[in-house]
Amino acid sequence: MTGKNATPVTVIGLGSMGTALAEAFIKAGHSTTVWNRTPAKAAPLVAMGARQAEAVEDAVAASPLIITCLTTFDDTRLALRPAAASLHGRALVTLNSGSPDGARQTATWAIGHGARFLAGAVKNVPSAVGAPDTLLYYSGDKTVFDEFEATLKVLGGDTVHLGDDSDLAALYEMAVGAMLLPALVGFFQGAAAVQARGLEVSTMVRFAGKWLDMIKSLLPIYANEIDSGDYTDAASSVNLFLAGAAHDADLTKETNVDTAWLAPLNDLVVRAAQAGHGDHSISALTEVLRKPA
Amino acid sequence: MTGKNATPVTVIGLGSMGTALAEAFIKAGHSTTVWNRTPAKAAPLVAMGARQAEAVEDAVAASPLIITCLTTFDDTRLALRPAAASLHGRALVTLNSGSPDGARQTATWAIGHGARFLAGAVKNVPSAVGAPDTLLYYSGDKTVFDEFEATLKVLGGDTVHLGDDSDLAALYEMAVGAMLLPALVGFFQGAAAVQARGLEVSTMVRFAGKWLDMIKSLLPIYANEIDSGDYTDAASSVNLFLAGAAHDADLTKETNVDTAWLAPLNDLVVRAAQAGHGDHSISALTEVLRKPA
Repeated sequence: MTGKNATPVTVIGLGSMGTALAEAFIKAGHSTTVWNRTPAKAAPLVAMGARQAEAVEDAVAASPLIITCLTTFDDTRLALRPAAASLHGRALVTLNSGSPDGARQTATWAIGHGARFLAGAVKNVPSAVGAPDTLLYYSGDKTVFDEFEATLKVLGGDTVHLGDDSDLAALYEMAVGAMLLPALVGFFQGAAAVQARGLEVSTMVRFAGKWLDMIKSLLPIYANEIDSGDYTDAASSVNLFLAGAAHDADLTKETNVDTAWLAPLNDLVVRAAQAGHGDHSISALTEVLRKPA
Repeated sequence: MTGKNATPVTVIGLGSMGTALAEAFIKAGHSTTVWNRTPAKAAPLVAMGARQAEAVEDAVAASPLIITCLTTFDDTRLALRPAAASLHGRALVTLNSGSPDGARQTATWAIGHGARFLAGAVKNVPSAVGAPDTLLYYSGDKTVFDEFEATLKVLGGDTVHLGDDSDLAALYEMAVGAMLLPALVGFFQGAAAVQARGLEVSTMVRFAGKWLDMIKSLLPIYANEIDSGDYTDAASSVNLFLAGAAHDADLTKETNVDTAWLAPLNDLVVRAAQAGHGDHSISALTEVLRKPA
């Protein structure tokens, strides 16, 4: 659906991600209404053809499909409050980070105002919005997903409905996203070590990329181990990582890199070994991360 | 080179990785001599056609190319000590984790005994040994790499010589490897959160894999930022991660997952913001990880 048959869309919240979402709709020929608390942020989108609503009520009233891209679920409800009466009969789709509980609260609030509600997450950076393999997942009202699927696919070709519970997208967003900062800090630490040796960080990019491919190839194996609770067929054991932890101290000594952030990670490995998982797969760390119920 | 023209090879250290290396050589038709401190570990390889040396001296004397796969460089020198006199004129290639300083010490020791020395690392799991895209990198004596390149490629098609300094492979091994445990613990934490909601961890594997692809796509950008020292064109800013850190507390509250290990990571983000990097790229964390010289 493009051009004059395309569903009119409203995008609320014009940070870098919200701007990318609105741009994708404009480029795909959707009549696109935008609103942002700081109105100046809308200027580049208006130049591309967006209609800027003066008040959030007008933004909500302009389209059957309202997409919000604010920082949290609390921010989302706060921004929409003046427009609550206009939500009736419309589809509200949130695309923000946030907790499962925040998604449930927002679902209750939106449904209470007569809206149909879908909570989603963009699993990529703003520059990837609109690409055929960009992943967005949603959970909540399946009728919204089905009715607007073609419109939602403007944002990324890999568009998935996880289930009817509105908190599932937030849960997966948190669960999957938990790798990002730790992996990046690992890369930055390696970068600092390479730089300390007088070498360019760009020289390690190809190797680090292949390393991530290797990690990716292990995920289905680890998932099966965790799902089955059987950690005994270990390709990489807790004890192997325990031996590796000793290298962190060497790295601190030999480069000028601060490895203090690794101490609690290594402590998890030690605790797994103490709990009898020494010869088990490293995925047994999942058992240590679970707090006693 | 396979069959009767193939270079005879000795593999010392028959853990899971050393065993995989020896298997690859046997399958490729190399006359393969093996030695392990605990001799019983050699039995499956002998069944495949390997010759088991009774003493490490015999193992070293059996081949022009000696490959060691022991846990550390200290272990490597300790195991080879009785065979030091036999190293003269042979090529010694180490394939173990270890610090750059350990590699330099081992180079000095081996060259002092008349050996040519190359230090390498297998950037993958044992089951990937021998695959066309498996990466192994080496540093040290380039004449060893050139003379035995075809033999070394039996272990993995992506075989690279990083430079003449014997410590480079260990440096890159540490630098690139620094992503592994943090990324995995992030995945295990997400797995525990998904399980706490009564869902199978396998349902998040596809999403987590795409997330790693996304992280991989960012590495060249971050490397350029770090190499140039210019963090101002931020796709993902320190402040964005600062906002995300608040979700960790929600995750702890809403699931039964222990997120204490994330505290020092979030502290690095806070320190970067305090150092004036709030609007800068998250790669500016590299500056915070560097200890004052």
